[in-house]
Amino acid sequence: MSVGIEPVRQLFRDLQDEIEARLADLDGEGAFEGQATSLPHGGLSWPRVLQDGANIEKAAVLFTHAIGLSLPAAATDRNPHLAGQPFQATAISLIVHPRNPYVPTAHMNLRFFLVGSTGPDRDLHWHFGGGFDLTPYYPFTEDVVHWHQTAYEACRPHGDVYARLKANCDSYFYLPHRNEPRGVGGIFFDDWIEGGFDASLALVASVGKHFLPAYAPIFERRAKMPWGEREEAFMLFRRGRYAEFNLAVDRGTRYGLQSGRNVESVLASLPPRARWTYGYKPTPDSPEATLTSRFLRPRDWLKVVDKSGD
Amino acid sequence: MSVGIEPVRQLFRDLQDEIEARLADLDGEGAFEGQATSLPHGGLSWPRVLQDGANIEKAAVLFTHAIGLSLPAAATDRNPHLAGQPFQATAISLIVHPRNPYVPTAHMNLRFFLVGSTGPDRDLHWHFGGGFDLTPYYPFTEDVVHWHQTAYEACRPHGDVYARLKANCDSYFYLPHRNEPRGVGGIFFDDWIEGGFDASLALVASVGKHFLPAYAPIFERRAKMPWGEREEAFMLFRRGRYAEFNLAVDRGTRYGLQSGRNVESVLASLPPRARWTYGYKPTPDSPEATLTSRFLRPRDWLKVVDKSGD
Repeated sequence: MSVGIEPVRQLFRDLQDEIEARLADLDGEGAFEGQATSLPHGGLSWPRVLQDGANIEKAAVLFTHAIGLSLPAAATDRNPHLAGQPFQATAISLIVHPRNPYVPTAHMNLRFFLVGSTGPDRDLHWHFGGGFDLTPYYPFTEDVVHWHQTAYEACRPHGDVYARLKANCDSYFYLPHRNEPRGVGGIFFDDWIEGGFDASLALVASVGKHFLPAYAPIFERRAKMPWGEREEAFMLFRRGRYAEFNLAVDRGTRYGLQSGRNVESVLASLPPRARWTYGYKPTPDSPEATLTSRFLRPRDWLKVVDKSGD
Repeated sequence: MSVGIEPVRQLFRDLQDEIEARLADLDGEGAFEGQATSLPHGGLSWPRVLQDGANIEKAAVLFTHAIGLSLPAAATDRNPHLAGQPFQATAISLIVHPRNPYVPTAHMNLRFFLVGSTGPDRDLHWHFGGGFDLTPYYPFTEDVVHWHQTAYEACRPHGDVYARLKANCDSYFYLPHRNEPRGVGGIFFDDWIEGGFDASLALVASVGKHFLPAYAPIFERRAKMPWGEREEAFMLFRRGRYAEFNLAVDRGTRYGLQSGRNVESVLASLPPRARWTYGYKPTPDSPEATLTSRFLRPRDWLKVVDKSGD
């Protein structure tokens, strides 16, 4: 296959439809809404959002395909010779903020960037990026192992990359001001060109297709668990950390806000509700303390044996 | 008076006590809590926070006095010759997030920075900074005019500076990604040395002493107004914008997070609860739309005549 936007664009649109349909099914009541909007030069933005569902408080599955005639110099510091060339970028980005505190928040992003006009592949500059990561409130070892096992399976046919992508994810989804990971991680990669276009696209497709097998079983197992005010309050408190990461740490969000892209789409990943409680500390050995002590630290989850029964 | 930390430190500590007492009184039920903590070389951090009060959902009045033996080069890009010298910084920072959506959120910060050892004043580098600003949800013209009138009075004995400080405030408390002011402003200044140390300290003292006369009457007038779910939902939505500003825009917060200061204090200004609703737009001509159309734009509030009766 020669390097080109079309197979990537099609993959991302298909993933959007597939994931949205399954999430609506998991919710059981709510519907995704959102208008496709034309972007300059034939681009497309299609944000699809479900709010206030039965099991999902907010989910956003966003597709974009941006086309530009001349790459701004600021966008390509590392490759100044690309400035002024035509470019395209396409991405799918999704977030699920469930209602039940026993269901983790999940996030996935896949993206492709291409600079240059059609011509011999060697004249084109391109790379992929993306991954998925999980942010539980009341985690179960079984769920986290399943999440990482599925991430491992997404990577396996595409080289021995899981460990590297897992470590990337741990480094990236990290709040330096809290000295704390955002969640239990997953896989993350950027500037990805390894093995060439076909191999990279195959890895990206595999990651995209493993999102639902990674997440849906966890969602289904936990969405019916009873919960009360205490669990909800803790989830809202932890969602404050999520907002801190997205607004104060995440490079993608910062770039999106500075680039003048649609702000509602850039900030679609923010939690529908969040809390900040000054000086909150969980009671030692409580389930809330367990999140930090047992889960919010980089671990090799493939080797964790679930002895606890939780 | 010769340049020195002591009169500033004393002013800020006195303001902390006075403002905290009045806020506790306005709340009627809650109490401020917080432990004074020694900082290296004789410094002091004293965060005082009231949470979950009757009329105040969260208020924080923070005092800090930091002492350093050697100014890091990164802290003084503009004055490289100051690197390595001893320094002191003292500040009072306060935020009030009321419960009633008809009571605006108020913020004040005053700070002083001093570099150099004791010696002739001309060898010392120092400046003041600070101001106060107001963020209403359901604003009343009368309140905003009173707020700015009091800010004007705070400045008046100290030179013709209100207009400049008001313009600074409008520029600083602004969300570029929303193309929207954070609130209705107030006064703001930085790197302030005008008229020398005594004159600058007098201005800062005047600003500090005018905070309660600016805010308390508004609080008292509005805290007993009835409100319901609609007003609360809108307040929480607008508080999301407040969190966006503090986490993604505010230079002070960014510096605080990067400098490794106590993260709970740096983020004490975050709202106790906030919401993000994708694609929310107020109904045209509703009270919620009025906030944006009539209040969230720079206006010369001293010249606004309250004809509306609201």
